[in-house]
Amino acid sequence: MSIEIISTGNEIMAGLTLDTNFNWAASLLTSKGITVGYHTSVSDNKDHLISSFKIASKRAKAVIVTGGLGPTEDDLSSISASEFLSSELVFNQQVHNSICEKLKSRGREPNENHKKQAMFPEAAETIENKVGTAWGFKFEVDGTWFYFLPGVPREFKPMFTEMVLPELESALDKNEATSSKMLKTFGLGESEVARRLSGLKLDGVDLGYRLKFPEVHLRLVTSGNSEPEVEKKFHSSIDLISGELGEYLFSTDEKTLEEATAELLLKKKITIATAESCTGGLLASRLTDIPGSSAYFLRGVITYSNEAKVEMLRVSEKDLGKYGAVSSQVVEQMAEEVRKLSGSDIGIGISGIAGPGGGTPAKPVGTVYIGFSHKDKGVFSKKYNFQGLRFEIKTISSSAAIDLVRKFCLNDV
Amino acid sequence: MSIEIISTGNEIMAGLTLDTNFNWAASLLTSKGITVGYHTSVSDNKDHLISSFKIASKRAKAVIVTGGLGPTEDDLSSISASEFLSSELVFNQQVHNSICEKLKSRGREPNENHKKQAMFPEAAETIENKVGTAWGFKFEVDGTWFYFLPGVPREFKPMFTEMVLPELESALDKNEATSSKMLKTFGLGESEVARRLSGLKLDGVDLGYRLKFPEVHLRLVTSGNSEPEVEKKFHSSIDLISGELGEYLFSTDEKTLEEATAELLLKKKITIATAESCTGGLLASRLTDIPGSSAYFLRGVITYSNEAKVEMLRVSEKDLGKYGAVSSQVVEQMAEEVRKLSGSDIGIGISGIAGPGGGTPAKPVGTVYIGFSHKDKGVFSKKYNFQGLRFEIKTISSSAAIDLVRKFCLNDV
Repeated sequence: MSIEIISTGNEIMAGLTLDTNFNWAASLLTSKGITVGYHTSVSDNKDHLISSFKIASKRAKAVIVTGGLGPTEDDLSSISASEFLSSELVFNQQVHNSICEKLKSRGREPNENHKKQAMFPEAAETIENKVGTAWGFKFEVDGTWFYFLPGVPREFKPMFTEMVLPELESALDKNEATSSKMLKTFGLGESEVARRLSGLKLDGVDLGYRLKFPEVHLRLVTSGNSEPEVEKKFHSSIDLISGELGEYLFSTDEKTLEEATAELLLKKKITIATAESCTGGLLASRLTDIPGSSAYFLRGVITYSNEAKVEMLRVSEKDLGKYGAVSSQVVEQMAEEVRKLSGSDIGIGISGIAGPGGGTPAKPVGTVYIGFSHKDKGVFSKKYNFQGLRFEIKTISSSAAIDLVRKFCLNDV
Repeated sequence: MSIEIISTGNEIMAGLTLDTNFNWAASLLTSKGITVGYHTSVSDNKDHLISSFKIASKRAKAVIVTGGLGPTEDDLSSISASEFLSSELVFNQQVHNSICEKLKSRGREPNENHKKQAMFPEAAETIENKVGTAWGFKFEVDGTWFYFLPGVPREFKPMFTEMVLPELESALDKNEATSSKMLKTFGLGESEVARRLSGLKLDGVDLGYRLKFPEVHLRLVTSGNSEPEVEKKFHSSIDLISGELGEYLFSTDEKTLEEATAELLLKKKITIATAESCTGGLLASRLTDIPGSSAYFLRGVITYSNEAKVEMLRVSEKDLGKYGAVSSQVVEQMAEEVRKLSGSDIGIGISGIAGPGGGTPAKPVGTVYIGFSHKDKGVFSKKYNFQGLRFEIKTISSSAAIDLVRKFCLNDV
C-alpha cells in the first residue's frame, strides 16, 4: 500500500488553478523511495470530499489532503473530516491565540472567520502553520493516516517537509530510492544541447530535457539501493555531460544563474555596478536577489531616456546622435562610467529594444547590446538578436549579462 | 452526475511530469457548462487502472482517460480497458495501415511495437489520431461513456476538442454556460477582504478567494443563458464589491498592479523616478514591464550602500548616522532628490531590511520605509512591517510603492 494525495478546490476542478502541490510532493516522495499510488482532485463539496476520503482510506496507507482550510465558507476540509471521522469539531483556544498573534504582528485584526480556522475534529492532532493562519491536522482511521494541509504552496511545502514527510519516512516501507538531479544550461538551444549529448553513454541514468526559458534544463533520473551508489552514477554522468557542455553548464545543484554568479563574485571578491536601459532594473534586481549581495553589488542606474544617459553617465551626446542609444559605443560608455562612478571592479551597460514598439529594419525588436567594463582589463560589448515578448527580452537580456559576468569570473585567474 | 478525468502515467505519479491535460480540459469543459466532478491520477499499473475505471463508472456519466496508448510495455490502457470490459483485444488492420503510412511519411520504419497500437477491445470504437500513432477508442458501460485518448498534449488536445467534446456537449445535461471573472486587491489580508464582503448578497454569483502573494484575488463565477445576462450579473456584483473595497480593488479585467498604475500615469501624464535600496531595482523593473513605459518612467537609481546614497542622492550623512539608512528621514530625501535630479512629477524612495540577515530588535527583517515626493504636494513616508523570505519582502515592498503611486493618481484631480 502506498500514499494517496487528494487535492481539493473548485478552482482546481474548474481548471482555473493549476495544481502544482501534487507534482511537487510526488517528486519529493519518490526521491525518498515512497510510492504515490493515487492522486484525486475533488471540488469543495462535502459529499464528494467524504466519498474521496472513504475510497482513499481503503487503498492507501497514508493520505495527504491539500486545501480547504481557509477562513471562508467554501473551505470545507475540516467539517468533511469531522463527518468522515464521526468526531465533532471543537474550538482550539491555543491555535486561535497563535493565529491572533500572527495577525496582530502583521497589523491585522482577527475576525469571526478566524475562529473557524481554530476548529478541528476532536480526534485530530493539529499541525502548526508557521507561515499563515491555516493550521493543519492529522488522525488515523483503521490503520490509514490522514494529513490535512493548506493548499497555498508557500504554506503547504514547509509543513509537508517539516512535519509530514519525516513521519511517512519512518512509518512506510521504502523501495529502491529513485533520485533525480537537475542540471542547468544557458546559451545553447534545446536541440543543440541534445545534439552535443547524443553520443554519450550514461550508465543507468535517464536523461530528459526541459526548456525553462531562457535556460535549458536537463533532468537525470536513476535508482539504486544506497545514496552512495546513486551519487556515483550521477557523478560520472555529470562528468561526461560537463565535458560536452563546458561553460554552458552553470548549475548541477539547483542554483539559479544569479546564485552561481554571486558565489563566484563573493569568492573572488569582485564588485559590480550596473547601468540599464531596456532591462529597466531587472538585472540589478536579480543580482540583489541573493542574501549578502551588498558585498558585491555597489550601485545601479536605470537610464531610460537619452537625457538620463548623458546626465547620469556622461554618455557622449555626439555618439548618441551618431550611433543611437542602442549601440556598442553607448553601452560601452555606460559600462565604463557606472564602474568609475561606483568604484566597482566590473561595470555592465545594457541598451536594447524590448518591444513591442520601437523596432526598425536595422534594429528590430530584440536587438540588445551589452557592454562589459573591467577596471584592469578594458571594455568590450556584444550584440544580441533576441526574440519574444517584452518580458522575455528583458529576462534573456538580463540572463545574458549575468552570464557574461559568470564567465568572466570563471576565467579570471 | 458529471465527468471524471483519469490521467495515467508513472512519470506523472513520480512527479517528473506536470500533468497539464486535466487543467486544460477542465477549463474548456467548465466554459461549456459541463462539470468535472473528479480527477484521478494513477500509475501504469493494470490493477490500479482497472480499479480506477470501476470507481469512475459508478460516479461519472463520462470518463476521459489520458495516456498509456504508446507502443511500449508500460502502456497499459488498452489491456486494462479490455479486462475491465471483459472484451478481448483484437487487431485492427485499418488502423495499423494508417499508422504505418504515417511513420513512412516521416521516414521511419514501423516495427512490432506498433502492432500493439492497433489492438483495441472488440467492443470499442476507435478515435482517429491525426497527429501521432496513438489512436484512441471509446465504449459504453452501464450508461457511462469511456473515452481513451493519448497523453501527449499536442495529440490529446485536438482529439478531445474535435472528437470527444461535441459528443459530450450533445449527450450530457448542460448547466448554463459558466463564466468567471477575476478581481484583484492589494493592501488587505484575505480574511479582511472576506469580512468586508461577508454581508453582500451577490445575485447568482459565487465568490471565491485566492491569495496570490502579495495580492488577494477574488474569483466571481456565474452562469446564464446569454452573455448579456452573465455580464449584467457580473456588473452588479462588481459594483457591490467595489463599494465595500474601494481603492483596495485595483483590477476587474486581469490587469496587473503595474498595468493599472501605468494606465493612470499615462492618462494623467504624470512622470516618475525611483531610488531603491532593499528592492534592488525590482520597483523600476516592474514599472518598465509595460510597453510605452518611457512616457512615464524617467530614471532610477539603486543605492545599495550609504556611500551611494550620499554621492548619488545627496542624502545627509548626518541623518544616515543619526536615523540609519532604514528611516523615514532617509527615504524622504531619496524620493525628493531622485525626483529633482530627473525632473519627474513623482519620486519614490525605498529602504528596508529584506533579510535574511541585517535585522535588529528595533528594525527586524521586513522593516521597510517608502518615501513619496511630489513636485507640488510635498513629501511623506510610510513605515511597513512585512514578513517573509527575501524575495517576498522585495516583492511586497515594490507592490506597496506601486500602490502608493496608483492611489495618488486616483485621488489627484
